[in-house]
Amino acid sequence: MTKSKRVLISIILRLLAFGATVAAMVVMVTSHDSAQAFNLTFTAKYSNDPVFKYFVIAEGIASAYSLIVLLITCSQKSSLWRFILILDLVIAMLLTSSISAAAAIAHVGKKGNSHAGWLPICGQVPKFCDHVSGALVAGFIAPILYLFIVLSSMHSVITHLFL
Amino acid sequence: MTKSKRVLISIILRLLAFGATVAAMVVMVTSHDSAQAFNLTFTAKYSNDPVFKYFVIAEGIASAYSLIVLLITCSQKSSLWRFILILDLVIAMLLTSSISAAAAIAHVGKKGNSHAGWLPICGQVPKFCDHVSGALVAGFIAPILYLFIVLSSMHSVITHLFL
Repeated sequence: MTKSKRVLISIILRLLAFGATVAAMVVMVTSHDSAQAFNLTFTAKYSNDPVFKYFVIAEGIASAYSLIVLLITCSQKSSLWRFILILDLVIAMLLTSSISAAAAIAHVGKKGNSHAGWLPICGQVPKFCDHVSGALVAGFIAPILYLFIVLSSMHSVITHLFL
Repeated sequence: MTKSKRVLISIILRLLAFGATVAAMVVMVTSHDSAQAFNLTFTAKYSNDPVFKYFVIAEGIASAYSLIVLLITCSQKSSLWRFILILDLVIAMLLTSSISAAAAIAHVGKKGNSHAGWLPICGQVPKFCDHVSGALVAGFIAPILYLFIVLSSMHSVITHLFL
């Protein structure tokens, strides 16, 4: 594979990752629903749970990072690639962490946990749960893309070394 | 750094990661406590929550993998190192995922979530919560060690290439 082809694949992967993280962030931030019980109105929103806040912050950091690296890649400042490879790895782990934590909370929201006495809430706030599910799907794609970004960068290094 | 020094560091990191994942698994599996309310006894154990089960399975997979790679490293079959580098990366992400999900559920267990009506349970089953906290500490160390394992493997490749 030529160098320009490798750069093109890297740019496509980073563009897709940028799209996925921005989508995950926007869909999570706009998740909102309210329910009435005993004449009181309850509002469900992402900021009610620290884990969902962490998810939004992590996706935001990854979006900004993807954009900066895209600009660097396009300007051909390849002297930074060693540093970028390490940061790619950290971002892949950050995205994995945020989606896993958010998925765990979303699971309790959907199924509850009868042993702990935590009731599911999706029956009361279905719109909120649909939004969160959408954010999780986008958030699940992002670390997979970053895994491929890291693998492709490592492949470039290894191919350089042995072929 | 000489090759033998690099191999030694890799062995030490993998031994530490093996210890951390085994400790996390054992401490989580042995977490157990019961509480009484209205003449009924409630038992808290890791298997009551699918996320804690996932944590135990992930730590188990990582333990077995660390042991196998240690045996391979000691037998000097270094032809597999490219495959091992990819698997190291996957294990690092698996460990990150499992600790993040388990920490999210443990956070709800400790603090609850008043918006969702989920009450904290640590007041009723403190022994269970202490065990889970211990498992989380060990489980938190493991992905950090794997991050260093991946970085040290990549460093070996990059050093080979440029120095």
